[in-house]
Amino acid sequence: MPIYADTPPAVGANLGILFGNRKLLRKFAAATRQTFMTEHHIISQRVQALRDWMEENDYAAYIVPTADPHLSEYLPEHWKCREWLTGFTGSAGTAVVTMHSAAQWTDSRYWLQAETELENTPFTLMKDGAEGCPGIVDWLKSQLPEGGDVAFYGPTLPRTDALIYSRLLPDIFRLAQDDEDPFDTLWEDRPPMPSAPVTVQPLEYAGTDVPEKMERIWHAVQSEGSYVEHILLSDLSEIAWTLNLRGADIAYNPVFTAYLLLHTDCTATLFTDLRKVEGVSDYLRERSIAVRPYEDILGVLKNLTDTDAPIGVGLSTNCGIYSIFPNIAEEKFINITSPVSRLQKLKVPEEQDGFRRAMERDGVAMVRFLRRLDEGTAGGTEMEVAQTLEALRAEGRNYCGLSFGTISAYGPHGAIVHYEPTPATDARLEPRGFLLLDSGAQYLDGTTDITRTIPLGPLTEEEKTVYTLVLKGHIGLASLHFPNKITGLALDLAARRALWQAGYDFGHGTGHGIGSHLCVHEGPAQIRKDLRPSTLERFVPDMVITDEPGVYLAGKFGVRIENVLLCTRAEETPHGRFCRFETLTLCPIDTRPVLTALLTHEEVGWLNAYHAEVRRRLLPLLTDEADKRWLNAATESI
Amino acid sequence: MPIYADTPPAVGANLGILFGNRKLLRKFAAATRQTFMTEHHIISQRVQALRDWMEENDYAAYIVPTADPHLSEYLPEHWKCREWLTGFTGSAGTAVVTMHSAAQWTDSRYWLQAETELENTPFTLMKDGAEGCPGIVDWLKSQLPEGGDVAFYGPTLPRTDALIYSRLLPDIFRLAQDDEDPFDTLWEDRPPMPSAPVTVQPLEYAGTDVPEKMERIWHAVQSEGSYVEHILLSDLSEIAWTLNLRGADIAYNPVFTAYLLLHTDCTATLFTDLRKVEGVSDYLRERSIAVRPYEDILGVLKNLTDTDAPIGVGLSTNCGIYSIFPNIAEEKFINITSPVSRLQKLKVPEEQDGFRRAMERDGVAMVRFLRRLDEGTAGGTEMEVAQTLEALRAEGRNYCGLSFGTISAYGPHGAIVHYEPTPATDARLEPRGFLLLDSGAQYLDGTTDITRTIPLGPLTEEEKTVYTLVLKGHIGLASLHFPNKITGLALDLAARRALWQAGYDFGHGTGHGIGSHLCVHEGPAQIRKDLRPSTLERFVPDMVITDEPGVYLAGKFGVRIENVLLCTRAEETPHGRFCRFETLTLCPIDTRPVLTALLTHEEVGWLNAYHAEVRRRLLPLLTDEADKRWLNAATESI
Repeated sequence: MPIYADTPPAVGANLGILFGNRKLLRKFAAATRQTFMTEHHIISQRVQALRDWMEENDYAAYIVPTADPHLSEYLPEHWKCREWLTGFTGSAGTAVVTMHSAAQWTDSRYWLQAETELENTPFTLMKDGAEGCPGIVDWLKSQLPEGGDVAFYGPTLPRTDALIYSRLLPDIFRLAQDDEDPFDTLWEDRPPMPSAPVTVQPLEYAGTDVPEKMERIWHAVQSEGSYVEHILLSDLSEIAWTLNLRGADIAYNPVFTAYLLLHTDCTATLFTDLRKVEGVSDYLRERSIAVRPYEDILGVLKNLTDTDAPIGVGLSTNCGIYSIFPNIAEEKFINITSPVSRLQKLKVPEEQDGFRRAMERDGVAMVRFLRRLDEGTAGGTEMEVAQTLEALRAEGRNYCGLSFGTISAYGPHGAIVHYEPTPATDARLEPRGFLLLDSGAQYLDGTTDITRTIPLGPLTEEEKTVYTLVLKGHIGLASLHFPNKITGLALDLAARRALWQAGYDFGHGTGHGIGSHLCVHEGPAQIRKDLRPSTLERFVPDMVITDEPGVYLAGKFGVRIENVLLCTRAEETPHGRFCRFETLTLCPIDTRPVLTALLTHEEVGWLNAYHAEVRRRLLPLLTDEADKRWLNAATESI
Repeated sequence: MPIYADTPPAVGANLGILFGNRKLLRKFAAATRQTFMTEHHIISQRVQALRDWMEENDYAAYIVPTADPHLSEYLPEHWKCREWLTGFTGSAGTAVVTMHSAAQWTDSRYWLQAETELENTPFTLMKDGAEGCPGIVDWLKSQLPEGGDVAFYGPTLPRTDALIYSRLLPDIFRLAQDDEDPFDTLWEDRPPMPSAPVTVQPLEYAGTDVPEKMERIWHAVQSEGSYVEHILLSDLSEIAWTLNLRGADIAYNPVFTAYLLLHTDCTATLFTDLRKVEGVSDYLRERSIAVRPYEDILGVLKNLTDTDAPIGVGLSTNCGIYSIFPNIAEEKFINITSPVSRLQKLKVPEEQDGFRRAMERDGVAMVRFLRRLDEGTAGGTEMEVAQTLEALRAEGRNYCGLSFGTISAYGPHGAIVHYEPTPATDARLEPRGFLLLDSGAQYLDGTTDITRTIPLGPLTEEEKTVYTLVLKGHIGLASLHFPNKITGLALDLAARRALWQAGYDFGHGTGHGIGSHLCVHEGPAQIRKDLRPSTLERFVPDMVITDEPGVYLAGKFGVRIENVLLCTRAEETPHGRFCRFETLTLCPIDTRPVLTALLTHEEVGWLNAYHAEVRRRLLPLLTDEADKRWLNAATESI
């Protein structure tokens, strides 16, 4: 999965920019209109209802981010308030409404889609990142020269964002946090808070039971000299990991909506919908985890005011939490680097073995699928082949569902990094060019994420060249030998050098962490060429990361080759400890498009060794002779 | 020149750590003792004199950094107070004296040397960076449980360092800035402040006259929305660049001691020893540069208090400057990123052409030298060959001196990154193994810095392998094609990948900026694998950087290959603007040690193309037929 990105139905992002193909644009715009759009007059009514509520409260402006109280990458339906209000279905963006104007900011991935969806609504599209596009603060200044209260719903804004707004807004404005959610009343058929039951992640896969995790967490905190006595977790992935529980509140991500308050005596209090945890009440009690209703978090935190012990919180904690100590928040809450994130990234042996087994099953599904694709029996369109692949994966043991919406992109669609087919865009596969297929599954014992670019027939020289260069980039990272504790930023060139030398590049990250039956995008580390906290994280053994370079040629085709890698301990050298990567993903990389002359001897050696390992591991797991023959052919040395 | 490093006579740094050779250690220690050491009882007397002065002032501790008021990398003799006090001649470290104890911190490069030099003195060696070595603050806490005033001389401590001390010292201590320099009286024969005359850097080489530089500086400041009306420059390289003046106050670096106060009307006031600038008074007057005595800087800044205009200063500004506004320094001084540093790094066409011409002359000297070295007529020891090379360089037009002390390191000495031969260590060259030669010169039209590793006879397989891998690393960076505005941190792998793959690495940076007839180490950008402000600087066309990977095998040998590169504008691609490097240095890279089988086709191609260019440019400049024959042979294709 290429980058921290959009959730369906964020279809067609970047189509205009990448394509420059007016015919296709019109087709896409029409399809979008039919499929998604809310009637314009309904949007106008919703905005008016919000303005009525603002007037009652004397607010000059209201900010609606795309967020839940846990700053999740993907939102439960209940929290899609910004989408409900504006009609814009993209998964990223912020809306701001004043009494006389309204605007929707979103980044370049969504400009075309937003243009279509916001047409004739009260919202002006603000192309975030475009030349001359004002930021929210500048826009507020231009719209409200007289100033006024700029309000937002506390739980959906991180404290750090609120501090930035406060600093940037001139004195005539007051940033007004309101802990009443207006959409509770305005949005009549608002979906309820998610209440799917949680299940226990078996210890044979999690590897470490909750009490031991608690001890490790507090050991990590105390070894840093921190004196917090409680830690509030609000990131849903961290909560699921800590408790070895999984949920179903968000598509593809097996997490559940909750807060978790850790206490220094290694007990904890879980705040969640009580119905979710009915089935695991004994499990929780045995592990000294008290359970309270989700809403109780504020009251319990407030009661802790009586003691002097400060509470450790992550940087992304929402303003609703901070509001319980209106004047002394800085004394009561101490920002800490999450100890959970730092432990979670290190996969224990049981998790590593789980990944290996899950990858075998995923590889079997991929091989069975690829054979059918070659034979023309996997389906005739992008969506059909995605469905075939999903059905084959579902036959595997421990299968729990997909880990993200399958990107099945034929021909020019492959150049759209976030493309996901819909009935309106679903392209028929032709016997030429590339099908780019980026997919993955959740298994109880591991999460997978794999991209293959498959030739459906004759290829152009450009297609072959680009494919070979991307493969060189992939091997460049996968085969790297590197000093322990190097940053992702310093590793990134390994996957790009071959592309850069030929004048190609890609705009997304090279690699992201991945959970063990958890989110397919997991922090804290990334491999990218740009500076951000995640690219300054250091690589150490036991971390898992994807390796997914690509090249996208607008209007023509896209190539991406992605495997999941495990950072392994390697030998001591006179120059310090060095690490290597073990490739976890097991699936042939198509050799038909490879221009062997462009590969070095070492690259050919890597590819042949990888294919030998894929064959060794997968062949015994196949039962169909035709599948075996296909795998043998696909893994032949070049 | 490998890294921001030591000034002579900081010989033998790291010898103990790198060598583990007791015999050599003893030899070196004895040599050091003879050459450098001040009698121990004299050091004791100096410490006692400082303590008497401390007692008069009621100071519990006194901090003596290795610094001048301009935070220069190399110090004028006048400012070597720390060395005078402790007897330790290394170029980095901080001494702290209390009434009953004294300690000298220094980093691993200097531990062996400091052990020897500090023996029997009142100073305890503190091995900065070693396991369990306390920091200055912790040491002060242990030595002075009762607390007290911790004093320092304001002009030799950056304001940012003082703020850190303040924050870390517990309440029982008071950080006491004293603007009287005790060494003015304690150090009886203290060398005077430097007063060498300054000269004008000819416009044909500088390219841009002072008024235009002033306009560009203020344009850069104002385009960032900054409202400062004065900018104080205290970095000597920035002052020399801005005024197109050069000095001789510091060895190898053609700078002069001064402050420069820039005014928003594009005039400026230069504070320096008036004797220095007698010869350029018309030049300065014509460019609206007023001149005042060095000491006047404080009074003039203080007078600016009457206006509201804040003064922009760099982060490294010393505490002496800040002290003139004891309570309102934060209002009067605004920290700004130096606009000069950002302009200085972009070499204008005249500077680029100057570099090219200087490199031709430097290349001619190198070729003439290398031929003599091959023939055995360049000298028989490390120092002799360095002198031969210096004499050949001195014959070149526009030659002004060396740009740093020549590193001429034979055999095991090559593994000591900071080795510089002295009479006591000077090794005889034998007809086997490597001579590592890192040298450079100042020419009016450019500064050079080149490392070649030269086989003096038969080599081991290990020597050949390491040499070839270092060459691969060098070519990896020199041949890179990369997106505009990439950071040095993201580029670094290009020079290391070949080494890492074989389990080798090097501890110094890969590349540093270089001045145009200015300091051989010039900011703001570096190429390194570790995170620091300099490695987050972005590479853009017109920047000049060295490319100097190496491998150092303790007790055996060292290899480093260094050229200077210019970042050039390259073609637009569908993936944005890409840059390339033009190699400025012109000198054959010895092909005798190369194991061709380890090179790729592209690497062989780069090397042959480089040698063709070296031959094309240098051959017409050689007059001696033997030199021409040597160059033709040395640049033959492999």
